[in-house]
Amino acid sequence: MEKKTISIREVNPAEKPDERVFAGLDPLPASRRIYVEGSRPDIRVPMREIRLEDSSLPGGKTEKNPPIFVYDTSGDFGDPEKKVDISEGLPPLREQWISERCDTETLAALSSRYGAEREADTSTLSFRFRRRRPVLAALPGRRVTQLHYARAGIVTPEMEFAAIRENQNREAYVKSLDAVPERNRRFMLSQHAGAPCEMSFPEYVTGEFVRKEIAEGRAVLPANVNHPESEPMVIGRNFLTKINANIGNSAVSSGIAEEVQKLLWSVKWGADTVMDLSTGKNIHETREWIIRNSPVPIGTVPLYQALEKVKGDASKLSWEAYRDTLIEQAEQGVDYFTIHAGVRLATIPLTANRLTGIVSRGGSIMAGWCITHGEESFIYTHFDDICDILAKYDVAVSLGDGLRPGCIYDACDEAQMAELRTLGELARVARAHDVQAFIEGPGHIPLQRVMENADEEFEACDGAPFYTLGPLVTDCAPGYDHITSAIGASAIGWRGTAMLCYVTPKEHLGLPNRDDVKAGIITYKIAAHAADLAKGLPGAQIRDNAMAKARFEFRWEDQFNIGFDPETAHAMHDETLPKESMKKAHFCSMCGPKFCAMRITEDVREWVRKNGKGN
Amino acid sequence: MEKKTISIREVNPAEKPDERVFAGLDPLPASRRIYVEGSRPDIRVPMREIRLEDSSLPGGKTEKNPPIFVYDTSGDFGDPEKKVDISEGLPPLREQWISERCDTETLAALSSRYGAEREADTSTLSFRFRRRRPVLAALPGRRVTQLHYARAGIVTPEMEFAAIRENQNREAYVKSLDAVPERNRRFMLSQHAGAPCEMSFPEYVTGEFVRKEIAEGRAVLPANVNHPESEPMVIGRNFLTKINANIGNSAVSSGIAEEVQKLLWSVKWGADTVMDLSTGKNIHETREWIIRNSPVPIGTVPLYQALEKVKGDASKLSWEAYRDTLIEQAEQGVDYFTIHAGVRLATIPLTANRLTGIVSRGGSIMAGWCITHGEESFIYTHFDDICDILAKYDVAVSLGDGLRPGCIYDACDEAQMAELRTLGELARVARAHDVQAFIEGPGHIPLQRVMENADEEFEACDGAPFYTLGPLVTDCAPGYDHITSAIGASAIGWRGTAMLCYVTPKEHLGLPNRDDVKAGIITYKIAAHAADLAKGLPGAQIRDNAMAKARFEFRWEDQFNIGFDPETAHAMHDETLPKESMKKAHFCSMCGPKFCAMRITEDVREWVRKNGKGN
Repeated sequence: MEKKTISIREVNPAEKPDERVFAGLDPLPASRRIYVEGSRPDIRVPMREIRLEDSSLPGGKTEKNPPIFVYDTSGDFGDPEKKVDISEGLPPLREQWISERCDTETLAALSSRYGAEREADTSTLSFRFRRRRPVLAALPGRRVTQLHYARAGIVTPEMEFAAIRENQNREAYVKSLDAVPERNRRFMLSQHAGAPCEMSFPEYVTGEFVRKEIAEGRAVLPANVNHPESEPMVIGRNFLTKINANIGNSAVSSGIAEEVQKLLWSVKWGADTVMDLSTGKNIHETREWIIRNSPVPIGTVPLYQALEKVKGDASKLSWEAYRDTLIEQAEQGVDYFTIHAGVRLATIPLTANRLTGIVSRGGSIMAGWCITHGEESFIYTHFDDICDILAKYDVAVSLGDGLRPGCIYDACDEAQMAELRTLGELARVARAHDVQAFIEGPGHIPLQRVMENADEEFEACDGAPFYTLGPLVTDCAPGYDHITSAIGASAIGWRGTAMLCYVTPKEHLGLPNRDDVKAGIITYKIAAHAADLAKGLPGAQIRDNAMAKARFEFRWEDQFNIGFDPETAHAMHDETLPKESMKKAHFCSMCGPKFCAMRITEDVREWVRKNGKGN
Repeated sequence: MEKKTISIREVNPAEKPDERVFAGLDPLPASRRIYVEGSRPDIRVPMREIRLEDSSLPGGKTEKNPPIFVYDTSGDFGDPEKKVDISEGLPPLREQWISERCDTETLAALSSRYGAEREADTSTLSFRFRRRRPVLAALPGRRVTQLHYARAGIVTPEMEFAAIRENQNREAYVKSLDAVPERNRRFMLSQHAGAPCEMSFPEYVTGEFVRKEIAEGRAVLPANVNHPESEPMVIGRNFLTKINANIGNSAVSSGIAEEVQKLLWSVKWGADTVMDLSTGKNIHETREWIIRNSPVPIGTVPLYQALEKVKGDASKLSWEAYRDTLIEQAEQGVDYFTIHAGVRLATIPLTANRLTGIVSRGGSIMAGWCITHGEESFIYTHFDDICDILAKYDVAVSLGDGLRPGCIYDACDEAQMAELRTLGELARVARAHDVQAFIEGPGHIPLQRVMENADEEFEACDGAPFYTLGPLVTDCAPGYDHITSAIGASAIGWRGTAMLCYVTPKEHLGLPNRDDVKAGIITYKIAAHAADLAKGLPGAQIRDNAMAKARFEFRWEDQFNIGFDPETAHAMHDETLPKESMKKAHFCSMCGPKFCAMRITEDVREWVRKNGKGN
């Protein structure tokens, strides 16, 4: 069969499952994929290098601007040298690291009943991911989690990889500045002190630092042994603030091809993890396509699929069905599960006087089950059993906030806080099983109460990473909830929240399309970056400084390229000044040619050079 | 000539100046214009009433939801009973109030040389606003400012109007809740305590409270005697946070018709004031069209026009040319002037080591003048004379931050802070002349340093209202600076900043078009509202509560209509569930019909009703 190279816009694997479908992401402008090698040759950490133009100095001289380096989550899709056959999936980067540890075995058959059923079901052949990957699990009695290794003092290749990634090649960048004049070095490297809250950053992140943060429960490194394709990354308050993008079909929308496209689209724009929240058809097969092609950790809410299995009747859910789903998904390679174990019989009544009750899907399903049966949730009562399963595959647990407030009115109420205390208790249980745990947070919170949520989480959960949805700081702007929530997200990120779950403009209105996904991701890149600057994370300001210098020097192309969305910036500039020559113009459309603030500044500098510092 | 009624989309007054051109804004859905009358029949304060659907209760019963009331800046354009002939302009609402004070006189001729010249220039006839309005000025020796009246203990009709506006008809809303069950009353009225910083809100704003705030310099009420068409509003930390939209042509773009359209568009979406920053052709005539049709205060930067008059050569600027421009614009009716008097010879050198130098247009023009002449700026040395002019017409002064930082690197530096201290000094001078003063602020500030800016302004300027541009919390997202700045704007608004100058997605890239203006305004409505909630302004949460209740009860149309942008919300919902019946669906596209979190909550409530509060 002939190979064809297609761009993401054309990826449609499910239509012709027998055909090889190669996909790559068009490189961002002026960008080059580089790899930073670690202590062994198979630790090669991908980054994006952004080339900058020379500065034009008075008198026709020029000055070099060294390239900057930024985090890159696009995996092999972002490397123009590589084309991924998405019907085969990404290469198993971590396979060797996992096998070297000699603590897993390849299973002869899938352990979940449902997984086995689907495998035997020939009606799924036409849309099934075709490659059969060896399925791993811990050897009996072993725990194969990064937390287990961290506590044993082992710096895994995954930890080293994640550490190198955090540094974004800053050491090389700093070294490259030896070639630039001293005055520019200051512009390129300085940054404002952060206002941290119990945060402590090393100048450079090391594998040992990552290990220590994981061991102490302040960070997680989601890395299921069955998702060897993933590029390790770390989530914790002392690292870069991460963002998650949700994809997934629902009963009324979207198929496999669309979901794979959304995945690629998400990592193109910088999602650090992706949650597959599918609730529609062929969830199992959709997930397999996603995981095999995902360079980032994949999260799910297993309860959604468990509910599908009992045809949507929450009362029919059972520990057995849920357990089978956990195993099914763990053996596919899901890196973290949202588990709504904090919804307890005793706290459900606290929601009855709420304005919007329970708005979390998972929370409402479990509450529905609890009240139907008049029993404590099986997820809560079986939490030890759950942890045993998670430890076998290294699935991290994201403790879901099933009782999160769904509106400003309900924010920070007793139901929310009672659940948070339960989540803290469960995080301790998870850690006792060497299971990596982090904590989900609200939701809808007015701005003046956003930060206390991070503080209370830190206190209640012994510093476990916090992972929040926004929060939205007002209920009044449907269609703009990426913005209402980015305001809350940047504030709570500043206060140490480790990962921000994006909200798209369609929140509360419908399922996001590609444009919405992109808007959500870019908006959350902004919120996360604002938080990193505010925390004072070393090197966070390098990109801002490079942008400011490009702006001051009218390097228009550099301004577009340094930004989070070069395409949009370029297109907007073109709207008023479409000519190519204007990309070098020493003015902009706001002020016109005779009127430019920045140009006058050059005169001021000249004057100060001649006249000294004034009086 | 036949009258024709046209929507804003077709307004093009300059094309046929002899034709009567009627304009109105299409009403927002489910909305009705109402007027709240004050102590005299000519104080009629416009508001928008949003009708809500009934709630459906189990068993087929229904329950009324009283309408809510929101601030409305659209003036007569937003009243479907009225059609404004934009070639005639708005009716002079405040004419009687001004004349009753018996402290102004009608001038026989324009006092400015330039104004008189343009009037005599027949080449401007084809695009000139045709109606010649009487031009007022204070009687000799009188000061006609709202500050002067406030200090004299007079509650002007303007103050009473602004006070009523602030309350958004809440008293009537609260009364209407007598008809709803007690449990709903709580949902509709409760709100989170604010986290104020030296703020104190009365339960209801009175004219006397507005007077006191103005008298003490903590608020301004921009109301030029030559802009009687404007509807009074008040800017101060103890009031609703206001937003400003910038419009105006530049040398490379936009004509009169476009600018009038942008004005109408701005007030449709809720701009509280509009600044005309034109720097292109026919500035004088464009401004006249704008002011005559503006229901909101208009601000300008007179320096821009003064510079046009000397053909863009900053060194040729003079006090005489600037003074003539102030008078020209004051007699047209500009309500506030941005005056960059804080740029001083001694502080200019402080900017030389900046990454982006001086980025304010006004600041760079004045710095250019100062260094060319080696003299203190004529705006600074003539500030007393300026105040004398402003007091004759009641033009408020917005003390421009000519040295505001243009990037994160330059934030909060000595140049910025030195200028802020000068602005405090000038605010005291202005107030000594009974001139209303407020203070402009940055710009680009990392999140952790945003709030200190509000505190320092409050301290340095004796509580004068702060008026900030954003601030943008990162430099890295051209194309998304409405968002980078809304993050900073909501934080600084929370800290008491009285007015937020919008930033559009095109900032740093080009001149905003209509879509950009709308995106900027809605984004800033969000930031301002988030700040009001965070300050704990009485009644601020009513709209959120109404939205949350509509959301919980699946009243889709109400959700669209309560929001800041009903059209966008409706369109987004239609994308996934276009059928009309889905607007009443008890589920949404995110979860599908069997799966809805909110529906399950209803079951929880039923269970709690039967089983009590649990253990």
